[in-house]
Amino acid sequence: MELSARNQLTGTIRSVKVGNIMAEVVVDVGGQEIVAAITRGSVEQLGLTEGQRVVAIIKATDVMIAKD
Amino acid sequence: MELSARNQLTGTIRSVKVGNIMAEVVVDVGGQEIVAAITRGSVEQLGLTEGQRVVAIIKATDVMIAKD
Amino acid sequence: MELSARNQLTGTIRSVKVGNIMAEVVVDVGGQEIVAAITRGSVEQLGLTEGQRVVAIIKATDVMIAKD
Amino acid sequence: MELSARNQLTGTIRSVKVGNIMAEVVVDVGGQEIVAAITRGSVEQLGLTEGQRVVAIIKATDVMIAKD
Amino acid sequence: MELSARNQLTGTIRSVKVGNIMAEVVVDVGGQEIVAAITRGSVEQLGLTEGQRVVAIIKATDVMIAKD
Amino acid sequence: MELSARNQLTGTIRSVKVGNIMAEVVVDVGGQEIVAAITRGSVEQLGLTEGQRVVAIIKATDVMIAKD
Repeated sequence: MELSARNQLTGTIRSVKVGNIMAEVVVDVGGQEIVAAITRGSVEQLGLTEGQRVVAIIKATDVMIAKD
Repeated sequence: MELSARNQLTGTIRSVKVGNIMAEVVVDVGGQEIVAAITRGSVEQLGLTEGQRVVAIIKATDVMIAKD
Repeated sequence: MELSARNQLTGTIRSVKVGNIMAEVVVDVGGQEIVAAITRGSVEQLGLTEGQRVVAIIKATDVMIAKD
Repeated sequence: MELSARNQLTGTIRSVKVGNIMAEVVVDVGGQEIVAAITRGSVEQLGLTEGQRVVAIIKATDVMIAKD
Repeated sequence: MELSARNQLTGTIRSVKVGNIMAEVVVDVGGQEIVAAITRGSVEQLGLTEGQRVVAIIKATDVMIAKD
Repeated sequence: MELSARNQLTGTIRSVKVGNIMAEVVVDVGGQEIVAAITRGSVEQLGLTEGQRVVAIIKATDVMIAKD
């Protein structure tokens, strides 16, 4: 499956924290941390756990730019 | 200014392409490309051009996870 | 590839309209129209054209509910 | 009230699950499930419960396209 | 129609700028400017023009917080 | 730091409610309430509490328009 989302960063899950509805997954992408807030249902369906290789995916319209 | 968005990736602008309303900014973050679709107005207000140091910012709720 | 996004609707592309930066893809999902605004670059990379079978994908945090 | 969001799918609430801050609402749209993660406050304000007719609403810029 | 989106700000359209795919609508909300990037199709369907009373709507999960 | 997000509304935090993963921050912007659903981690990192001056930030692509 090829996805239109332009940003697809491969990494390793560093932690998974699960609440009632939402969950927080932290992915190590080449030494940099990417934090994802997804539903608890997704974490369970994909069986996400620490140490797995995953891809963090972000649609281009959801990226902002900041300048000093 | 400290921002609640959890993902803040420092990099260098590789290209800026401007349309009538939207613009596409490609940022090199440690060898990986991040693509941002922002308004043309933002590109002009920030004076974004190739080679600048910028930060690509993404809210955690906008990050998805994929698994092979 | 399995994706955390909870909403994945299979359909057929009805139209692709391309601008400078953005593009609009209309997908027929069981008789209902789904409109996606994605980058022109994504349309070109995926080679999206009318009549193709595709999946419209939406993160649960991007869905709102309205009641009469 | 007419809304700019291009995707408005009418259906019936199949389930409502409420956490501290967020809630998950599953809507049956012509046999297909749409999952929405909205705030608990919205669920309470709208009085959302199983069996109600509602509309799942999604902005076009939040829809991605995938191809096999 | 009652909508789950928590932020609904009433104002007056100050300007509408239309591109091929996207459009930019600026709304004056009590002296403050709110900028919306929506599809050109939405602008045409709603017949948006300068001077109209409209509501700018934002889902709570799309709001960030910054502190000095 | 200058940010590409077009909507930056200064106000005062009226309430902070924290769950396991997510948190809800209500900001008073000139008498109008803005509700933000951000991660609990962000609330802790920024040390957000009632009465603080903050900025509610929204990307233009996340704003919709409604008309009566």
